[in-house]
Amino acid sequence: MRGEMICIGDELISGRVEESNSRYAAARLWPLDIGLAWVVMVGDEPAAIQEAFTQALARSDYLIVSGGLGTTEDDLTAAEAARFLGLPLAEHPQKLQQLEEMLRPRGRDLTPEIRRMAAMPAGARPLDPRSAGFALMSADGRPLYFLPGVPLEFRRIMEHTVLPELAARAGAGALARRELRVYGLPESEVGRRLAGLTQNFPGAGLGYYPVFPEVHLILSQRAGNEARAQAALEPLERAVLERLEGYVVARGGASLEQGVAGLLTARGLTLALAESCTGGLIGHRLTSVPGASDFLERGLVVYSNRAKVELLGVSPATLEAHGAVSAQCAQEMAQGARINSGVDVGLAVTGIAGPTGGSAAKPVGTVFFGLSDGRGTQTHQRRFHGDRAMVKAQAAETALDLLRRHLEEHAPVRGS
Amino acid sequence: MRGEMICIGDELISGRVEESNSRYAAARLWPLDIGLAWVVMVGDEPAAIQEAFTQALARSDYLIVSGGLGTTEDDLTAAEAARFLGLPLAEHPQKLQQLEEMLRPRGRDLTPEIRRMAAMPAGARPLDPRSAGFALMSADGRPLYFLPGVPLEFRRIMEHTVLPELAARAGAGALARRELRVYGLPESEVGRRLAGLTQNFPGAGLGYYPVFPEVHLILSQRAGNEARAQAALEPLERAVLERLEGYVVARGGASLEQGVAGLLTARGLTLALAESCTGGLIGHRLTSVPGASDFLERGLVVYSNRAKVELLGVSPATLEAHGAVSAQCAQEMAQGARINSGVDVGLAVTGIAGPTGGSAAKPVGTVFFGLSDGRGTQTHQRRFHGDRAMVKAQAAETALDLLRRHLEEHAPVRGS
Repeated sequence: MRGEMICIGDELISGRVEESNSRYAAARLWPLDIGLAWVVMVGDEPAAIQEAFTQALARSDYLIVSGGLGTTEDDLTAAEAARFLGLPLAEHPQKLQQLEEMLRPRGRDLTPEIRRMAAMPAGARPLDPRSAGFALMSADGRPLYFLPGVPLEFRRIMEHTVLPELAARAGAGALARRELRVYGLPESEVGRRLAGLTQNFPGAGLGYYPVFPEVHLILSQRAGNEARAQAALEPLERAVLERLEGYVVARGGASLEQGVAGLLTARGLTLALAESCTGGLIGHRLTSVPGASDFLERGLVVYSNRAKVELLGVSPATLEAHGAVSAQCAQEMAQGARINSGVDVGLAVTGIAGPTGGSAAKPVGTVFFGLSDGRGTQTHQRRFHGDRAMVKAQAAETALDLLRRHLEEHAPVRGS
Repeated sequence: MRGEMICIGDELISGRVEESNSRYAAARLWPLDIGLAWVVMVGDEPAAIQEAFTQALARSDYLIVSGGLGTTEDDLTAAEAARFLGLPLAEHPQKLQQLEEMLRPRGRDLTPEIRRMAAMPAGARPLDPRSAGFALMSADGRPLYFLPGVPLEFRRIMEHTVLPELAARAGAGALARRELRVYGLPESEVGRRLAGLTQNFPGAGLGYYPVFPEVHLILSQRAGNEARAQAALEPLERAVLERLEGYVVARGGASLEQGVAGLLTARGLTLALAESCTGGLIGHRLTSVPGASDFLERGLVVYSNRAKVELLGVSPATLEAHGAVSAQCAQEMAQGARINSGVDVGLAVTGIAGPTGGSAAKPVGTVFFGLSDGRGTQTHQRRFHGDRAMVKAQAAETALDLLRRHLEEHAPVRGS
């Protein structure tokens, strides 16, 4: 089964708004062997929309349309769909009622503009009580989905309705999916380790795509019903985790920083950061998690040697003998962060983000890490490639990953 | 003139790699009135590629193809273009020579794989000495461009060749473009202030698209030659700057943080940051600029009250009386950052990023800013809307913008 997606809107075709729905849909349909073969983007123009519909139905087994379902006059999708299918455009009574029920508690009226969201080709089925969007079959029995372009609504309807229905149509039964995030292995090595794996799991799919510096994996499983699909995912996920050893840094759609925040909070541990080349990026990532103040006591962006000495107690002799980019400095930074801040764990990063500042002994991309708790302080060294932004991104990811591994492997030790 | 773009690659249609070239091209072509009317994405599949070529040539005035021009066997674009146009596929002698000259200093040979980059339909013109890519005319005189999918190469060839050529074809002469970034005005207000402006400037275009929390403007100007186009942009840019008052935060394609870094470096000023709700994001943005160590002495992510007191000397009485999210606290944070670090300027942010922690008096999104130099300390209050990430992004942007305005308006004062 090969699908097509049509994205409609002047805001897309003019480049004013990023079109992100097609990649989202493509990455989820591909591993199910029901991927998109065509993605077409057009503006709010009836003739172009009709031409796109005609071409899609001439070559594709199903169609997903995104956009043009709002409350203004340039939202043409419902009317053009009705025209294309030779059906009258009609207000769907149940949809109209849902809209009224949604508006009533907010004290708002059902205006003619909002009524537009209930208009759809006669015989269509509304897709979601909270959004516009409908589905119907073409004359020769191919499924046609019309979804709002707002990414949150598009994704919700894809997850709840379109993906399960298309998966069921392609095979039988229900579809379950899980996301894993991998860091520390090149994409090619991830592919090599997972090669052939799904052959042992009937109905299983595996899609992966890089989101620098991570690789995201989508595991999917078709089965007779949702519960069996979920159950069948368990051994697949275990097999993937085993083949990738400790390189899966986040599961269940969470981010690495969410996982680290969860581990710290669950163990009741507090953290202080000492960032040099990452410049605040680790703090930014951890404080993107709601409730970060429960564990993050402080972060010290020590961009000068003076700040390293004053704030972290790094010894001037260490800086003199080994330089600020050294294992010795990373160790003293992590220890100083922990002890001076009175926290359980200190995490430190110092390195050369580039483009200048490298040497033969310490080229651009050389980064040292320190991790300190009541047991002692460990250091690590890495060499990253790429431009300044890429070195910073990998250094922050590695620091968070070292902390994750440490928290997963060791019992918590409290107090500095 | 209405164009079409075809993006080719299994990595795109599977969602494994983000397709970013079409938005880049669309946003630059639209303001010139030679925008894309269609964007089509297909996989590495000969039949689909031929169908896409056929449909594009039936409806569009020019064609830009992106991708499928690499060195492996699934790079089909050159061969499919030759087949479509009924031309032999041939190695371009000059291109082959360029490839040899590029490889020689690296001690590498011209392998059969690399030779593929010189293959193009007979009569085509290579577009760039460092990349694959070629152009030719259709039988009925429509320009066809075939560009590599690698975004850096795609953009370079668009800027240097495709945009100027298409602009010249649409009007006469050359095309000049500039980018301005706007912050602090809603998109609708930017549109209102700039409405009708280009009517006074023959050959001028104005495209704008939001990149949260900024709005980016692309000013363009067609004229007989490059020098005249550049010269004609001057009064247009001045008029835009005037209508937008101080809300243009960056010019010439630079970012706000690059502009602030330039101002600090040029004035020889040093900076210390005191970040609470932004959690390190301001430090991260400033340290993304190479050479940030010339001005950034340190950043203090004071996520706890204890850190505010210990590191910045905020008075416990202030925290008791006004709370950590208050103008008084922001003032003491900025002053403490400046004086304790021995720098010229202290910049502080404290606020409620949400989703919890708000109150009737200080709802989620309330943020206070402090800016301190040898003259004294000023504070500002803002109320932002959106989720936690959006509040953080707006708080960091506002802090950098306050610093930019301060540096632009006042003579430098050195020493803390």
